[in-house]
Amino acid sequence: MYDELKKRVYEANMLLPKHGLVTFTWGNASEADRKAGVAAIKPSGVEYDKLKPEHIVVLDLESGEVVDGNLNPSSDTPTHLELYKRFPNIGGVVHTHSPHATAWAQAGRGIPPYGTTHADYFYGEIPCARPLTEEEVEEAYELNTGRVIAETFEQRGIDPDAVPGVLAANHAPFTWGTDAKNAVHNAVVLEEVAKMALMCEAIEPGVRLMPRYVLDKHYNRKHGKNAYYGQGGANG
Amino acid sequence: MYDELKKRVYEANMLLPKHGLVTFTWGNASEADRKAGVAAIKPSGVEYDKLKPEHIVVLDLESGEVVDGNLNPSSDTPTHLELYKRFPNIGGVVHTHSPHATAWAQAGRGIPPYGTTHADYFYGEIPCARPLTEEEVEEAYELNTGRVIAETFEQRGIDPDAVPGVLAANHAPFTWGTDAKNAVHNAVVLEEVAKMALMCEAIEPGVRLMPRYVLDKHYNRKHGKNAYYGQGGANG
Amino acid sequence: MYDELKKRVYEANMLLPKHGLVTFTWGNASEADRKAGVAAIKPSGVEYDKLKPEHIVVLDLESGEVVDGNLNPSSDTPTHLELYKRFPNIGGVVHTHSPHATAWAQAGRGIPPYGTTHADYFYGEIPCARPLTEEEVEEAYELNTGRVIAETFEQRGIDPDAVPGVLAANHAPFTWGTDAKNAVHNAVVLEEVAKMALMCEAIEPGVRLMPRYVLDKHYNRKHGKNAYYGQGGANG
Amino acid sequence: MYDELKKRVYEANMLLPKHGLVTFTWGNASEADRKAGVAAIKPSGVEYDKLKPEHIVVLDLESGEVVDGNLNPSSDTPTHLELYKRFPNIGGVVHTHSPHATAWAQAGRGIPPYGTTHADYFYGEIPCARPLTEEEVEEAYELNTGRVIAETFEQRGIDPDAVPGVLAANHAPFTWGTDAKNAVHNAVVLEEVAKMALMCEAIEPGVRLMPRYVLDKHYNRKHGKNAYYGQGGANG
Repeated sequence: MYDELKKRVYEANMLLPKHGLVTFTWGNASEADRKAGVAAIKPSGVEYDKLKPEHIVVLDLESGEVVDGNLNPSSDTPTHLELYKRFPNIGGVVHTHSPHATAWAQAGRGIPPYGTTHADYFYGEIPCARPLTEEEVEEAYELNTGRVIAETFEQRGIDPDAVPGVLAANHAPFTWGTDAKNAVHNAVVLEEVAKMALMCEAIEPGVRLMPRYVLDKHYNRKHGKNAYYGQGGANG
Repeated sequence: MYDELKKRVYEANMLLPKHGLVTFTWGNASEADRKAGVAAIKPSGVEYDKLKPEHIVVLDLESGEVVDGNLNPSSDTPTHLELYKRFPNIGGVVHTHSPHATAWAQAGRGIPPYGTTHADYFYGEIPCARPLTEEEVEEAYELNTGRVIAETFEQRGIDPDAVPGVLAANHAPFTWGTDAKNAVHNAVVLEEVAKMALMCEAIEPGVRLMPRYVLDKHYNRKHGKNAYYGQGGANG
Repeated sequence: MYDELKKRVYEANMLLPKHGLVTFTWGNASEADRKAGVAAIKPSGVEYDKLKPEHIVVLDLESGEVVDGNLNPSSDTPTHLELYKRFPNIGGVVHTHSPHATAWAQAGRGIPPYGTTHADYFYGEIPCARPLTEEEVEEAYELNTGRVIAETFEQRGIDPDAVPGVLAANHAPFTWGTDAKNAVHNAVVLEEVAKMALMCEAIEPGVRLMPRYVLDKHYNRKHGKNAYYGQGGANG
Repeated sequence: MYDELKKRVYEANMLLPKHGLVTFTWGNASEADRKAGVAAIKPSGVEYDKLKPEHIVVLDLESGEVVDGNLNPSSDTPTHLELYKRFPNIGGVVHTHSPHATAWAQAGRGIPPYGTTHADYFYGEIPCARPLTEEEVEEAYELNTGRVIAETFEQRGIDPDAVPGVLAANHAPFTWGTDAKNAVHNAVVLEEVAKMALMCEAIEPGVRLMPRYVLDKHYNRKHGKNAYYGQGGANG
């Protein structure tokens, strides 16, 4: 019944080691089928070279109960589900410990927009969410990770569809997108942007942000009704 | 009619991922046939593993109108065409977001000549062009990118044939050469030189430029009528 | 008689170049069979692409005398044997010169816990053991390397089962685990954590440690009786 | 007549791209046959994927005249020949522009001995030779590069057999060894050591050198009559 969804989620997960974003099992991708009211996600702790489409776990989007699959879902599942609930337009979520993005998360800093590589995909700073309190960690760590991410976007007035990623403080990045594959795409971009921003600051301490009008230009070259990059497809 | 040109441009584009210079579709190579009055370039947003010679778009060098091909040309095409117009000896142009060169572009700094790797290919600092104004961005972003690059070389008295590359501020590098393949070659060198210069400054803050006479020696070992590097071919 | 053990140790050693942890012969993995009273280890100076299971050397855990094999054991063997003696629960030991971890060892600094990647495997700082004295080097260098590592854990009250690795000052990392393969796993993690911590400090000089309650949460998510990561297996 | 020598030099040259030490044609390896009074070296500017054993050029060790081969020898040949003349025990020389070692050369700093990876191969600092004067560059650049390297070792009392490499200021590293393959081996080590030293100083600015007695211990573990590393072969 969920064979197509599981296949897509399997393939998106397999892109993570292909792009060098994960060591061992440090990452997971999910995709939501909002009409069917379900999301599919990688099982917890299964090595990528042993992962098969039939291992993918399907859960109810609201309750989080497993509706298909014999394995435990990723321990990060409550974060994914919270993001689907709070960001109504997204269809895929990815979590990795890719090294440069994780270094920014450990440093507790958002990634400033320094150049067009950033602006082509993220319409402004990629924020670093605040650390969870001890109570939030003890009560429901993974669920509250998702809540604090959503809170960050709401309180700062950031549109999650225009900034499809975040750094969880002391932890690592989460990205999202129209589907699981697109969320993986954004995870690759975030890692590249994190690498370039680190080197940019090393080359020129105190470097200034890119001009707002260049940020606008590049983002709108690829997104929205006046986009002219590519062959007419999304993210061309 | 343009099969040979398209094949060469296709092959030059395929060298970009081979040399690790591009992520996804972040790069493009073109080549001009000045006698025929055309240039050929990668189509916009087409993934490298799906690119075929017949996808390459051929344009009129003056008007920029498509004379062969069914796809949209790279959105950076006006920059390429402006460079062909302003730098009359060049036959190929390449644009990438290679990470070290892009970090220098984001930092808004030219790459100082610190060693012979640089001097073998770039006869002096690789300049960083000034940022475009808001008006320039809004009027004709890609065309003005090319204009500002040419302005940089003219105002600073830099010979584009001796310094075959530039950093577009807050953006990324452009390189050029005798043909598309040679422009790719220079893109690889620029990325290596950018990496070495970053590390060099980390090792010795305040490091001085290489002596002018060593720069002269190395550049002239490979270029000009007294070159003695290689087997007698250009850039041997 | 020791064919199974030798095969496992061979396979663990071959994982070191596969994970990019060793250049030339700069690394070795061993495994102890405590019931049989032996440990098996890589022979000294044999290149990985020539290594075969029958080359693995088996030694008496107490005396260090060779009980099986025709080659000299790794020159680091006395360190391995001392670690098996002092850390009674471990079953595998690995030594590498992986570059980021080695850079921290050369700097004489332990790796501070800055994020969950660290906390998932190492329950607190990965210590840097004190340098050996001249007398200790001259008397029995490799044995005393093991002694100083054990001393570090005892004096600082660190549980070697919860912090399965150490940096030997001016030298390089040692890791351990339940068996040789698990010790290799921890060597990979240590290298990743060393890379992230270096970049984290570059991004935010003076960065603070992760909160203790996040460290606790992540470590206990993967270890101990309340672990809920994975499919029920150790280190899932 | 020189088929064996040319084959060995060919194979040593092919190890340079295999170990990631060269971009394009930026490197060369040579080997001397002192009994025959000749040295063999890579031809100038020939790409590695087109190089064949028959391309290797054989020269008279004293006069530098070509005695076998149809191609121009490497433009760095006079440096190689000067090193063979001044360092009577060496049998192979390698030149690369490997990025980390080149960054140190561009910074004009020798690589301090910070750890055992360094001490296992280089018995003390890897020196950076002084820059050539303008007269030296104009008179005979490549020959004087060799002379200044030899001068560095003589004036500072460094034994070239115990420190088999050097940085040419504003240029790049040269290494040597018992034969061409061994010189390649030392070039790989130098690049690794350069990378670790750069990171070590980033982690701990003002870091101190490793203790002399650890340097002695590690160097002598692998070299000389009391060496006990490996299976009894040189550099085991």
